[in-house]
Amino acid sequence: MIHNFNPGPAALPPEVIARAQAELADYHGTGMSILEMSHRSKEYEAINAAAEANLKALLGLGDDYRVLFMQGGASMQFALIPLNFLPTGGFAEYIVTGSWGEKAFEEAQRLGQARLLASTADQGYRSLPESDSFTPDPQAAYLHITTNETIQGVQWPAELPQLGPAPLVADMSSDFLSRPFNAGQFALIYAGAQKNLGPAGVTVVVIRQDLIERGRKDLPVIMRYATFAKNNSLYNTPPVFAVYMVNLVLEWIKDQGGLTAMAERNARKAAMVYAAIDESNGFYAGHAAPAARSLMNITFRLPSPELEKKFLSEAQSAGMVGLAGHRSVGGIRASLYNAVSVESATALAQFMQEFAQRYG
Amino acid sequence: MIHNFNPGPAALPPEVIARAQAELADYHGTGMSILEMSHRSKEYEAINAAAEANLKALLGLGDDYRVLFMQGGASMQFALIPLNFLPTGGFAEYIVTGSWGEKAFEEAQRLGQARLLASTADQGYRSLPESDSFTPDPQAAYLHITTNETIQGVQWPAELPQLGPAPLVADMSSDFLSRPFNAGQFALIYAGAQKNLGPAGVTVVVIRQDLIERGRKDLPVIMRYATFAKNNSLYNTPPVFAVYMVNLVLEWIKDQGGLTAMAERNARKAAMVYAAIDESNGFYAGHAAPAARSLMNITFRLPSPELEKKFLSEAQSAGMVGLAGHRSVGGIRASLYNAVSVESATALAQFMQEFAQRYG
Repeated sequence: MIHNFNPGPAALPPEVIARAQAELADYHGTGMSILEMSHRSKEYEAINAAAEANLKALLGLGDDYRVLFMQGGASMQFALIPLNFLPTGGFAEYIVTGSWGEKAFEEAQRLGQARLLASTADQGYRSLPESDSFTPDPQAAYLHITTNETIQGVQWPAELPQLGPAPLVADMSSDFLSRPFNAGQFALIYAGAQKNLGPAGVTVVVIRQDLIERGRKDLPVIMRYATFAKNNSLYNTPPVFAVYMVNLVLEWIKDQGGLTAMAERNARKAAMVYAAIDESNGFYAGHAAPAARSLMNITFRLPSPELEKKFLSEAQSAGMVGLAGHRSVGGIRASLYNAVSVESATALAQFMQEFAQRYG
Repeated sequence: MIHNFNPGPAALPPEVIARAQAELADYHGTGMSILEMSHRSKEYEAINAAAEANLKALLGLGDDYRVLFMQGGASMQFALIPLNFLPTGGFAEYIVTGSWGEKAFEEAQRLGQARLLASTADQGYRSLPESDSFTPDPQAAYLHITTNETIQGVQWPAELPQLGPAPLVADMSSDFLSRPFNAGQFALIYAGAQKNLGPAGVTVVVIRQDLIERGRKDLPVIMRYATFAKNNSLYNTPPVFAVYMVNLVLEWIKDQGGLTAMAERNARKAAMVYAAIDESNGFYAGHAAPAARSLMNITFRLPSPELEKKFLSEAQSAGMVGLAGHRSVGGIRASLYNAVSVESATALAQFMQEFAQRYG
């Protein structure tokens, strides 16, 4: 039994893996694997439609939104968003609370006028900007935020401060579907699937209809959101297996009780690990300020790099994998996405307590 | 038992499906699915490296080439190639022999100066241009061809006519690894995996080192070939499962005897189906001129749309799927990629003979 704390690609629900395995050689009596099926088949079109419908149902969204299944990960979205929605002479605003927001902002600067509305870089990305410290410009083409920063372990609350009337765009790669939130306040949400949604290889985009129509029309066909919307994500061959897996995960979330159940489970898991940090008398030093703590990625340091190495190695021996911090910052990171079980979080918290007792 | 003639996503080797299924829940004793594994894990890095090495070995390529695993399909390559390699003031040349070449050419025209060197559109894409009918310009930034047109069923021979000194770029999505060829004559080859290589969701790019360095540097990071080359296709999260499957297919090709064995098998399969056309006294009318016939996609018409409908429906009842022609042209198309068995081709040829006898 392995406890999988990988930062993404990450743990998937065991029920979903079991089902994918059971039907891998013969999808629903077709005599073919899902891997061998045409994306124009009625079977795949049903999966594609179900994935959009299931996602919209979980988010409580209606006909004014579309769900698109794209490729290239969040990094491709960093470029496609300014390409499509940053008009010549216009500007966009970015709030940067960690490494991923930084990358999104850099790509936008390369492609047009992108302004840094707020950043917590000078505090080492430990917190969120105070809401009275910035004033969004209503004239911005859009305002971009990153709801959860996986590397620093900083997360915006589900209830956001007032962010003004410009179209709100969010990178939710690492906390999408981890809790209920008001999806209707966003013009565009994007998320690489490989955290809470499925395997790597598909990027889910939730986009408001009016924004689609505002996109530039002089771009390559494959780089326009309008192309994906008009063709139900079937303009060209989609990543069939990844979308199929996402749909299985969406059904699993629904079966578990939806986003409310996910939020309760995620809060319980994170509380145990944060308690192990807070009750360690400073042996573990959490990176994020308490008010900005992520429920998805818990980042902390030990008193020395040697102890961190020992921690990782003993954790590995105890069957806990994926706990090394991102190579750009080091330290420890426990990723507790939807599919990570309460048992895994319990095991980690207990291991942390014992390790602190032994070496603290 | 199903005979899978899907045009892509398409049949995969049964041995590969069986292996993927067997190890889906626990990859090599790690206690995790390949779907849950970090792309920075040593296991995935080994898969990524093996896939590059296996592909270069099959193609007989050395250190002057790189293999990249990208996303977005051939349609994304249609845009990325001119974006990277068509300099301001420069021009590229395109030879168009079917619908996919047409799309590649249209995208290039949108992005820079693309010239139509030769086209067989006015004959309905049935043939290849006579080699004395066009003269490639040595000053072109590159010359683009499509080695196999899946929709029309037209294929260039493995041994190409003299195409001049400009860097040769080829869309090989639908005949890559189906036969031995001189890979060293190409500056860039790209192929969506979902025909001969694996499932949908990864695009394989084989690129000569000197071309990588010639790419534009003012593009979004994720749109530069140099980014993928420098980071061994791990700049951002790759489509892990699709690359894993591609590597299994590469090993299968090697085990079968490499590209020579593929070519022999593919020639045998296609010969049977073309014989069923040629010996039908005109009941079946092949689309491609005999000299341009594709060994991958065999396209033909029946005397009436009603008979085509009946053909598809009776074929389906006999366990043969994926035979409808592309929705843009209609008719019948049998795709006989590497993983389609000799038994399936035999069954189809026999069915065609019987059908012609009954309705001819």
